Amino acid sequence: MLTDKKVSNFLGELASNSPTPGGGSVAALAGALGAALISMVGNLTAGKKKYKNIEEDIKKIVSSSEKLRYELSQLIEEDVKAFNNFMATYKMPKETEDEKRMRTEKIQEALIEAAKVPLKTAYKCLDIMILSREVAEKGNVNLISDVGVAVLMAEAALESAVLNVKINLRMIKDEKVRTELSSSIEEILLKEKGQKEKVLEIVEEKIR
Amino acid sequence: MLTDKKVSNFLGELASNSPTPGGGSVAALAGALGAALISMVGNLTAGKKKYKNIEEDIKKIVSSSEKLRYELSQLIEEDVKAFNNFMATYKMPKETEDEKRMRTEKIQEALIEAAKVPLKTAYKCLDIMILSREVAEKGNVNLISDVGVAVLMAEAALESAVLNVKINLRMIKDEKVRTELSSSIEEILLKEKGQKEKVLEIVEEKIR
Repeated sequence: MLTDKKVSNFLGELASNSPTPGGGSVAALAGALGAALISMVGNLTAGKKKYKNIEEDIKKIVSSSEKLRYELSQLIEEDVKAFNNFMATYKMPKETEDEKRMRTEKIQEALIEAAKVPLKTAYKCLDIMILSREVAEKGNVNLISDVGVAVLMAEAALESAVLNVKINLRMIKDEKVRTELSSSIEEILLKEKGQKEKVLEIVEEKIR
Repeated sequence: MLTDKKVSNFLGELASNSPTPGGGSVAALAGALGAALISMVGNLTAGKKKYKNIEEDIKKIVSSSEKLRYELSQLIEEDVKAFNNFMATYKMPKETEDEKRMRTEKIQEALIEAAKVPLKTAYKCLDIMILSREVAEKGNVNLISDVGVAVLMAEAALESAVLNVKINLRMIKDEKVRTELSSSIEEILLKEKGQKEKVLEIVEEKIR
């Protein structure tokens, strides 16, 4: 498991001449960092007298952000698995016509899976961005810069994940799947639009 | 050392109700992730026949990105140290006038240090963004989405670091230091402007 490695080793393996882990795992990790920061701000808001009236809201937020942190941690691994699976299909035999057909089919299946993993990451990062806004409005004002970092991480992670969907998408031949993936990307980017700016506006105002 | 912890434990400690590690360390880590991706793309470009004519350029890029990865890994720790040092100054005795004066002085010193660490992070992230552009133009086109993720991480890290400078800046009383820090932030944001967009333009073009 990649998340069982030391941070320094993860960085070292990322930098190495092995294609995994790569950008897809980094997207999921950056999303998990954003989710963890939301949890931290929530955990340092809950139980404080000043924020007693929003205690229940904060508990719900932390429950959501912890779920997202867990899911995004899983996606760090899933991305590597999907890529390795894709690479393995290339090594399938291609002597006979049957083998060739089977190989092409498996490559296409693996590509679709490799596109779906970062798509999941992108949806989860969108959820973090929406949570960030609520925390920016309600959470412990002393940690407002951490909320800003959370939304910045979530946005960069979302856009990184979208790039990873796109790079697989270009090799997918099934028109129906292509359309579905493209619509999902469009939906995500539309919903993302302005989220970061709104959160950072609140953050900058509270920092002053 | 935070970078000696497992990725999963780092995320867990980040999410906990302890203020460290916090957004400053996340900024440095995100920068290190960007630097590592530049190294990976470089390492998967060098030695390839197709890129033989730019072998020397790529070696220089990887040497720079590996240095930045190392420095940003150090900044993950430095941010925690600076914050803990700042918190410690608050616990200094404040009975006598002398103690009060000494305490205020030490708090201000610690605040300046706590602002300077993320400022270093921001400068290093700017360097990664500049490297990303060169890699986007020259590097192995098969890894173009990883270059996109690198620049997205570096930009989010830079802006996260700037928020961490600002949150400390507001409590610093020395006008000269305030002006210096503000000018540095302005300089960084000015140099950052348009960098990500330019890199992503190249990325999107090569993904198609």
